[in-house]
Amino acid sequence: MEKILSMKNQKVKQWKKLQTAKGRKEAGVYLIEGTHLLKEAIKAEAQIQDVIMTETFYQQSDLQLADEQIILVSPEILASLAQTETPQGVVAVVRIPGTTPVLDYKGKYILLDQVQDPGNVGTIIRTADAAGYAGVFLGEGSVDFYNDKVLRSMQGSHFHLAVHRGDLQQLIPELKRNGIPVYGTELNEAAVDYRTVSPTEAVAVVLGNEGNGVSKEILALTDLNLYIPIFGEAESLNVAVAAGILLYHFVG
Amino acid sequence: MEKILSMKNQKVKQWKKLQTAKGRKEAGVYLIEGTHLLKEAIKAEAQIQDVIMTETFYQQSDLQLADEQIILVSPEILASLAQTETPQGVVAVVRIPGTTPVLDYKGKYILLDQVQDPGNVGTIIRTADAAGYAGVFLGEGSVDFYNDKVLRSMQGSHFHLAVHRGDLQQLIPELKRNGIPVYGTELNEAAVDYRTVSPTEAVAVVLGNEGNGVSKEILALTDLNLYIPIFGEAESLNVAVAAGILLYHFVG
Repeated sequence: MEKILSMKNQKVKQWKKLQTAKGRKEAGVYLIEGTHLLKEAIKAEAQIQDVIMTETFYQQSDLQLADEQIILVSPEILASLAQTETPQGVVAVVRIPGTTPVLDYKGKYILLDQVQDPGNVGTIIRTADAAGYAGVFLGEGSVDFYNDKVLRSMQGSHFHLAVHRGDLQQLIPELKRNGIPVYGTELNEAAVDYRTVSPTEAVAVVLGNEGNGVSKEILALTDLNLYIPIFGEAESLNVAVAAGILLYHFVG
Repeated sequence: MEKILSMKNQKVKQWKKLQTAKGRKEAGVYLIEGTHLLKEAIKAEAQIQDVIMTETFYQQSDLQLADEQIILVSPEILASLAQTETPQGVVAVVRIPGTTPVLDYKGKYILLDQVQDPGNVGTIIRTADAAGYAGVFLGEGSVDFYNDKVLRSMQGSHFHLAVHRGDLQQLIPELKRNGIPVYGTELNEAAVDYRTVSPTEAVAVVLGNEGNGVSKEILALTDLNLYIPIFGEAESLNVAVAAGILLYHFVG
């Protein structure tokens, strides 16, 4: 079992670079934090490169790990890698999957068009997981997926769902050709009240940017655009709440 | 128009105290930030005590305010009162309503049992507003309502909904006596699938703590406890997302 006590150690410097999108992209790995996410990673058979923990955590841990996977560090090093205020004492370096999951055009999908808030992106993916959706498509301009706040809100759901990336303008016609109805979401009543659309086995729901909604180019490509009626005086719904209402509506 | 340029000014010191729950309680006022919330406060005829802005904001503002309401401050003072990273240049001191709104036992209500995260509380209240609910009850142990993060997530919905406070254990039997069905929410399948319960004109939905859910004492008092089925591998839903699904379900 390796032990690192100096903040100036090369490995510590490399790990700290994973706190930025650029660093993650270059290294092809990302950091997860805490017991829950680590257990989810193990369960999902994710490729875990290093498990970094304090001595105290190691003593108390019930994790089934080989000693050669573990690197013990000082509480200071752990705190510098963790992004929560009271870290649990463990972070891990996990490989970003290199291959794209196969898209079989079955089941339910969500498409994210420039959703910016990490908490919203994570919560939407967690909701899609709960609602039994098959996968999520991250369009260009959506927040970096391996951001610590996204990971915290997802609570491991990225290990359960197929995550695709790409240009939604290319993807939508493809989904339609394969018989999947694609529904955009709009904030105005020019769109169709979601309650009038029946649940179907396969569906793709597009969610948009917090301020601007789904972009016009995307709305022009969908089968239908839906809105959630506002009965009170609020101007709009939070995008993650809107996602929850729509995703569970299509479950039936 | 008053002008304050020194951080040591007594008023600045008093305003800064409003950033804590204790300070707000003692003074009976709270701070709102930004144009949107200020406009909502004006529209709702809230008692606005001071409107504090920078000179730059004053020059560009289209707000209809009497000059004697306005206090001009330096950008440093404004930044010290604002809680966002890039403040818009205006904050206001608003009176906390002294009287409790009348409860007419009509319409739809939400009850919050120890919901802790300010963003969740704010988002739930915004959703209740959007769904046309009549009011919200904050049980003891829920987060302080005039917290800046709650205010930011509510986006002014506390000006639209009746906000009640009190002991939910006293309130629930009262609601039931007045013919309002009270539904708790549970994370386990011992409860009833929400989809089997029909929407009704009047309803009260109880939402609980992020980690522990609705407390046992409360669950024992309700007419029925509901759960949202999980079809995938996520362990639970975010409480604000769960609220959105249930609140819109009861709209029908």
